[in-house]
Amino acid sequence: MSPSALNKDVGAYLDDPKNIERFINRLRDAVKIDSISGEPARRQRVIDMGEWLNQRLTDLGVTTELRDLGYEAGVFVDNVPVKLPPVILGRIGDDKNKKTVLIYGHYDVQPAAKEDGWITEPFELDVKADHKPGEKYDAEKRYGQMIGRGSSDDKGPILGWLNVLEAHNPTPQKPDEAKPKADPEWPTIPLPVNLRFCFEGMEESGSEGLDALIQKEANQEVGWFKGVDCVCISDNYWLGTTTPALTYGLRGLAYFKITVSGPARDLHSGVFGRAVHEPMTDLISLMSRLVDPAGNILVPGVDNVGPASTDELDIYEKLDYGLEDIKAAVGANIALSADRVQVMMGRMRMPSLSLHGIEGAFSGPGAKTVIPASVSGKFSIRLVPEQIKKQTPEEIAAKKPAEKLVDTVTALVTAYLESEFAKLGSKNRLTIEMLHGGEPWLEDPKHWSYAAAKKATEDEYGRPPDLTREGGSIPVTLTFAQSLEKNVLLLPMGRGDDGAHSTNEKLDKTNFVKGTKLFARYLYEIAEPNVGN
Amino acid sequence: MSPSALNKDVGAYLDDPKNIERFINRLRDAVKIDSISGEPARRQRVIDMGEWLNQRLTDLGVTTELRDLGYEAGVFVDNVPVKLPPVILGRIGDDKNKKTVLIYGHYDVQPAAKEDGWITEPFELDVKADHKPGEKYDAEKRYGQMIGRGSSDDKGPILGWLNVLEAHNPTPQKPDEAKPKADPEWPTIPLPVNLRFCFEGMEESGSEGLDALIQKEANQEVGWFKGVDCVCISDNYWLGTTTPALTYGLRGLAYFKITVSGPARDLHSGVFGRAVHEPMTDLISLMSRLVDPAGNILVPGVDNVGPASTDELDIYEKLDYGLEDIKAAVGANIALSADRVQVMMGRMRMPSLSLHGIEGAFSGPGAKTVIPASVSGKFSIRLVPEQIKKQTPEEIAAKKPAEKLVDTVTALVTAYLESEFAKLGSKNRLTIEMLHGGEPWLEDPKHWSYAAAKKATEDEYGRPPDLTREGGSIPVTLTFAQSLEKNVLLLPMGRGDDGAHSTNEKLDKTNFVKGTKLFARYLYEIAEPNVGN
Repeated sequence: MSPSALNKDVGAYLDDPKNIERFINRLRDAVKIDSISGEPARRQRVIDMGEWLNQRLTDLGVTTELRDLGYEAGVFVDNVPVKLPPVILGRIGDDKNKKTVLIYGHYDVQPAAKEDGWITEPFELDVKADHKPGEKYDAEKRYGQMIGRGSSDDKGPILGWLNVLEAHNPTPQKPDEAKPKADPEWPTIPLPVNLRFCFEGMEESGSEGLDALIQKEANQEVGWFKGVDCVCISDNYWLGTTTPALTYGLRGLAYFKITVSGPARDLHSGVFGRAVHEPMTDLISLMSRLVDPAGNILVPGVDNVGPASTDELDIYEKLDYGLEDIKAAVGANIALSADRVQVMMGRMRMPSLSLHGIEGAFSGPGAKTVIPASVSGKFSIRLVPEQIKKQTPEEIAAKKPAEKLVDTVTALVTAYLESEFAKLGSKNRLTIEMLHGGEPWLEDPKHWSYAAAKKATEDEYGRPPDLTREGGSIPVTLTFAQSLEKNVLLLPMGRGDDGAHSTNEKLDKTNFVKGTKLFARYLYEIAEPNVGN
Repeated sequence: MSPSALNKDVGAYLDDPKNIERFINRLRDAVKIDSISGEPARRQRVIDMGEWLNQRLTDLGVTTELRDLGYEAGVFVDNVPVKLPPVILGRIGDDKNKKTVLIYGHYDVQPAAKEDGWITEPFELDVKADHKPGEKYDAEKRYGQMIGRGSSDDKGPILGWLNVLEAHNPTPQKPDEAKPKADPEWPTIPLPVNLRFCFEGMEESGSEGLDALIQKEANQEVGWFKGVDCVCISDNYWLGTTTPALTYGLRGLAYFKITVSGPARDLHSGVFGRAVHEPMTDLISLMSRLVDPAGNILVPGVDNVGPASTDELDIYEKLDYGLEDIKAAVGANIALSADRVQVMMGRMRMPSLSLHGIEGAFSGPGAKTVIPASVSGKFSIRLVPEQIKKQTPEEIAAKKPAEKLVDTVTALVTAYLESEFAKLGSKNRLTIEMLHGGEPWLEDPKHWSYAAAKKATEDEYGRPPDLTREGGSIPVTLTFAQSLEKNVLLLPMGRGDDGAHSTNEKLDKTNFVKGTKLFARYLYEIAEPNVGN
């Protein structure tokens, strides 16, 4: 293996215990700002967080703009419209001989309250002691965990990038100083790449206005993202707890609501049972025709993914994640197959159809003998690019717009359900709506940005990363990929058990420290001669 | 047709406008007492209503007992247990040469509040003017309706019986008199039958304790119901709005909850879709195997009702109720068949299976990409006696206990669902519960009590009644039939559109007046020589 490209002083700075202590304290300060974007009444705290982060960036030499996105659509608190937090746009370095990397992150967090079941105050970072050699292991002690809302999603990763900046520009702010100044102990080092930043404050609440901003700034004449060579996002997680990951795909989504309506009002089953067509009977029959218990999608044309190539199979076979991990994650032995590779391919490279529930039917506890008048089944299909036929070279040459997978799937689902409903011979009415959709995203994991991240991971963690595809949506990924037409890398910092959206969210101290070094290593690997040329 | 047996003075008394005005005012007084049994905090109002009714009965010469049923199980208001309202047991007449008729009614009502959509104050009886000849008809004016909670369910019918008592014992209480005294205008007339009364105050809330009371009082040595020849209950409705009805059957019910459980917690469909067995997929598949869109029950052995006999077909063909009525009642043209008789037989003499809903799945508006961990499907089967094989004469002779239909159906449903679930090959778990059940009730409509009611109806309304079977439960019917082993007649006073459990409940003034006379005529027809001998 070739030697690591990481600058030795930078590596030493990021390993220094005093510096690490300061990094953790900076994370503590960030966690303290309860920047919950989903609670409009507390919106000022998100804005406070944006201003805090902007100050840290400018202290570290980044040129920034706080982009005002106006007011959140349709949201008022005490009849007053609610401002959107700013998007922080940043740039540092403009060397034409260096690559330019765009970093995305978000500084807002999920809601959290002690009474939801947190073992600590969610906005007070609680740093647990490390496991001491020889000490009896007690899982309750959560060795080395830093517990707090936002620690892993996504303040920890953002601060990882700040740590990297600081390692090149050692101007740590001391408690008794109004302004940071150069630390004589450490040299100033030029960054190996130009960096651009896009940090938003509404990721957990729909990222209103962000897509338009990205599309505008992607303008190669005047935009903030002019000259970007690749994008790196750290906002997802390893598969498990031991092996780092690079993520090169996200499944898309088409979410459907199908409604069967009949009577003008709810009926009593004693009076009208077996006298009229019941909407629930029709709906359940339709929903049963969508997916079989083995997970196969029954809508013709929607489940046409071919077999995996040898290269792909190799990726799944190498994943450090097995049936026992699935069992632990879901709390039951209910994997669809006894073949680990099949299960992981089902999760990552296959489309899936899940039935979520029914609106309008009896859903409470107890017994109610109602014939509901109108019932709406909710289901969604996770989408993968392999579902759609590739454009031919002729179509590409003719600049024929690529078919949208969401539209194709919606048309197939609609035609199928209408045909199946006609077979029921019911006098009720069926309507089909696609509530929201998102295209899948898939990157080439052999791209130089991925190769650099793989080398950086091997150097930092001593093992190759899992190459993963995910089902959860990070819609901004696709927006960056399409607007910039550049490679996007998802480079997670935290582990699969961080609990990003649940109680007791944590980031392991080692993930913070080693993750920061991974970020630095990645930039240096990218900057190597011959990479991407 | 033979002449009416009704005593002419009784008929004249019940037709007298001054008396009718007093009857309506008495109904007004009864409606004013908001005896909602379903709201424990207002229980005293139900007790008040029982005491009011008891006073009216004793004023009219009925010997009564207010039977204390103790406290409602598990119900407390401000930590204080809540008393059950008394059952009023009453008797008048002990002539061994007369038949003895037991009358049941209930003096509690459904909840009601103006803000639910009532056009009037629900506990102020609003008596609308009659349609005047020549006046332009305006349905909004609700001609001749008496609107108020309990007017039709069930205070109107109870007061119909009081009117009949008063017509034989004309002691109307004047406003300036503490005690009623004989009205010299009208003669006192002996009742044609002995009467027994059972009026309860918890019918709308489960009739706690009533079954045990009836079983006890059915004791032919000492019970209040000793010597009863037949039972008459007026607590249901005509099919439509123009033709009176006698009801000789009620469908039973078996209510099921089937639960499919898998993961230990809800999962994200992006992460686990097509990786694990999803409980919703299994449940929807099972529910789709219970009933087809034409209403046929797919559980083997549960849908084995033979063809109707000629006599039965005749009943359905004569019903004054058609597809247009069904369409009007449900607000849509969704009858299962274009054959009126088939539709009415589906409603009355066939079992039915309705899917009510799912507990534990996503049931709100909007979109949520959850894989629910545990989901419970709710469905119920309406039962008819024809589903079960009749006992052979040998079994009857051997006093073999008759099979319970609910138990039989539960066993069939359980075996079928377990077998279908095994076919799914799922690793999730299935549990099946029968939440509550009630046996069906079916009477011989040629019994002398029915013949008397038919003659009374023809005399009062000038047309034969519909002979109906219903789906809604009046569980006390079966308790009387089984405890007393006597014929039970359901003799409705109100119309099919009275809205007993909804807003703007009403009783038409003509139904109150003619219904009262129908009750009187029925008693006189029963008392005719040769009837029941």
